[in-house]
Amino acid sequence: MMDSPLSASLSMEELHEAWPVLSIDERLEGFRLLPSAVADDFFLGLSAREQAELILHLPTSERRTWVRLLPPDDLADLVQAVEPEAADAILAQLDDASRREVNVLLAYAEDDAGGLMNPRFARVRPDMTIDEAIGYLRKQAREKVETVYYAYALDTEQRLQGVLSLRQLFQAASDKKVADVMHHDVITVSENTDQEVVSQLFTEHGFMALPVLDEQNRMKGIVTVDDIVDVVQEEATEDIQKVGGMEALEAPYFDVGFFGMLKKRIGWLLVLFLGQMLTATAMSSFEGAIQRAVVLSLFVPLIISSGGNSGSQASTLIIRALALGEMRLKDWWRVARREVLSGLVLGFVLGAVGLGRIVVWQEVSGAYGEHAFLLGCAVALSVLGVVTFGTLAGSMLPLVLRRFGFDPASASAPFVATLVDVSGVVIYFTVASLLLRGTLL
Amino acid sequence: MMDSPLSASLSMEELHEAWPVLSIDERLEGFRLLPSAVADDFFLGLSAREQAELILHLPTSERRTWVRLLPPDDLADLVQAVEPEAADAILAQLDDASRREVNVLLAYAEDDAGGLMNPRFARVRPDMTIDEAIGYLRKQAREKVETVYYAYALDTEQRLQGVLSLRQLFQAASDKKVADVMHHDVITVSENTDQEVVSQLFTEHGFMALPVLDEQNRMKGIVTVDDIVDVVQEEATEDIQKVGGMEALEAPYFDVGFFGMLKKRIGWLLVLFLGQMLTATAMSSFEGAIQRAVVLSLFVPLIISSGGNSGSQASTLIIRALALGEMRLKDWWRVARREVLSGLVLGFVLGAVGLGRIVVWQEVSGAYGEHAFLLGCAVALSVLGVVTFGTLAGSMLPLVLRRFGFDPASASAPFVATLVDVSGVVIYFTVASLLLRGTLL
Repeated sequence: MMDSPLSASLSMEELHEAWPVLSIDERLEGFRLLPSAVADDFFLGLSAREQAELILHLPTSERRTWVRLLPPDDLADLVQAVEPEAADAILAQLDDASRREVNVLLAYAEDDAGGLMNPRFARVRPDMTIDEAIGYLRKQAREKVETVYYAYALDTEQRLQGVLSLRQLFQAASDKKVADVMHHDVITVSENTDQEVVSQLFTEHGFMALPVLDEQNRMKGIVTVDDIVDVVQEEATEDIQKVGGMEALEAPYFDVGFFGMLKKRIGWLLVLFLGQMLTATAMSSFEGAIQRAVVLSLFVPLIISSGGNSGSQASTLIIRALALGEMRLKDWWRVARREVLSGLVLGFVLGAVGLGRIVVWQEVSGAYGEHAFLLGCAVALSVLGVVTFGTLAGSMLPLVLRRFGFDPASASAPFVATLVDVSGVVIYFTVASLLLRGTLL
Repeated sequence: MMDSPLSASLSMEELHEAWPVLSIDERLEGFRLLPSAVADDFFLGLSAREQAELILHLPTSERRTWVRLLPPDDLADLVQAVEPEAADAILAQLDDASRREVNVLLAYAEDDAGGLMNPRFARVRPDMTIDEAIGYLRKQAREKVETVYYAYALDTEQRLQGVLSLRQLFQAASDKKVADVMHHDVITVSENTDQEVVSQLFTEHGFMALPVLDEQNRMKGIVTVDDIVDVVQEEATEDIQKVGGMEALEAPYFDVGFFGMLKKRIGWLLVLFLGQMLTATAMSSFEGAIQRAVVLSLFVPLIISSGGNSGSQASTLIIRALALGEMRLKDWWRVARREVLSGLVLGFVLGAVGLGRIVVWQEVSGAYGEHAFLLGCAVALSVLGVVTFGTLAGSMLPLVLRRFGFDPASASAPFVATLVDVSGVVIYFTVASLLLRGTLL
């Protein structure tokens, strides 16, 4: 019956596999071919952007089912992913109570705990018995609560008194009170806690959910660990892209338009290009030396890049350690000492290899003339200096950025490399001038 | 009573805050100062490495409580984090049944679904009524099952028939059968599925847990989303460190010894250093040209680094897109086309800026002599060529590595930069020779 390239007995995995390369019409067609039992799961598994795209291409009559399937936190994400008019069309499908919930969530910044939380959580009263509490939870699950892994005990003012895991609830004797069994010492976050801090709490403590309180200690919702997986992925992607020397994309590669992508890339490239121009300026002040010994210029790329590479390593290490909370600003002195020592050792090894290479090449081909050994020493010493400086600069720069409130990940590999390149030129020619005066120079 | 620097009323957050900088003795002291109600949570929130360290420093009499607090999957991680003798000391604290469970888990590779899974999951029979199932789950929770968010319906051969969320269980009428309510179409993983694939399933579908089956479709355990948060962090850290041009560390910055750290860093630095030596070789074949026009050498760092920077961007983008499953190998042609176009636009912009800079500088200082404009054109054209080549090489290299079964993240920013540097030297001097013959050269 179907003339479509997609078979009529499409499975969820097959559609997922093909999804990234399908056009919107093919996506719609594929989605309709899914058995209805799995279509829900498939829809819930899509990103907010993809859900919005699909909904907006459905006839109005079919939209309501899918919009109402989404919990308020996902709806808020979806509304944020589309144009204002499209957002209104989507919100119009909701009942009044849900629309109010979504609008409350939309008032929070996307990257705050408030923007991540689900306002529908399982609640009990501290004075209920265990059996009453289980009965009450069953009732809530039948209505609209998604997440019943923890039950939160609230007083009449909605202030959080304690928390019970389902396991504790199930383990306890039926006639005990909730207050006897619950944890009183609950770790909470406020509505405005940044999502990076929230995700660190999850990874440190291994929670399944965290309650979100307002300033009056009233409970507003929960952040669940499945949302944190996305946060962690997102933050890591941003950091990796920044480390690679560009602005964070905020969408998958193929979803970013050609010119949008260029905009994210050209900024840093220009900054780095302008910075690199200083290498030309630095070298021009040694033009006389190069004139006298052209052989010196041959090693410029080798020397400056060894500084850039060791700097990239060091900055990347520190950026990640800061992001994971393994290191704080006040550890800077410990880091600096360690990195200077590392730089000296790494620079010594690379310098020795460089000297060896020049000496061997000279034996083989005589390319570097009678002062080859001295030249080799100048290269080796410069590599030692440049690598040590690169390692120190690369490790301190992310800490300095964090200190002044910037994102440490902006100390990208290319940025550090550029910084070190300019100083590398100066170090090299200064060392060479001192060492080779009266011989090559 | 206490003369310790740690106050006697220590909170969980305070200890967490101080933890990374405490010695093992201070950690032990702090841990003992925690109120017993939160000590469990604190202990469970530590990494396997830290749990092991703490346990091994406790007197044998206190070890048992803490060892038995851990579920089998966490115990397996812990045993893998310590020396064999220490592992035996820890396993000796377990009852026989638990030790068997841990030993089964230890047989799996750490990075496989089998190595992540918890063998204690909530099970029901398809022919139970909802009320019977809830009663049965309560009994299991009282014994040792940790995770009761989903109940798995198994037949008598332990083969998976379906799955029910607690919400579905709670929603359903008491006298319905499990088989009437459960999902039949369950997404599962095998024992040997790689953890990166498992974590992609979680992020794509938003699951709380995934069942793990053996080859006979018997259910062996579940992987829960809280373990996936760690996997995602870990994989991102590995990728970021590789992108920064070093081997993945596999432990926090301060936990890696000085020489262990050097070992992770020197390898790539040496490879890159040896690779960079080719720039000296390449430049030496243009020594005559440099001799005639020293001014040419001034722009070598600028030109090659513009290629390196654009290559770093492109490779980082593609590495991350591959890791997130946003792109597959067969998209290579689409990527190549797009990146060549990007490279041409980016190279044109940078080249124009370079030309402008040389022309302006010449007006101001006359530094580049009568052929400054031609020199500027040579630089601009070289930048265009080098950036285009860098962008293309940077984007294709991760795909090539993946194609041949290597980790795409090995196409690190410094690696791509080195590769492009050598070609950059050749491109620059070739363009200059063609353009400046008869004038500067």
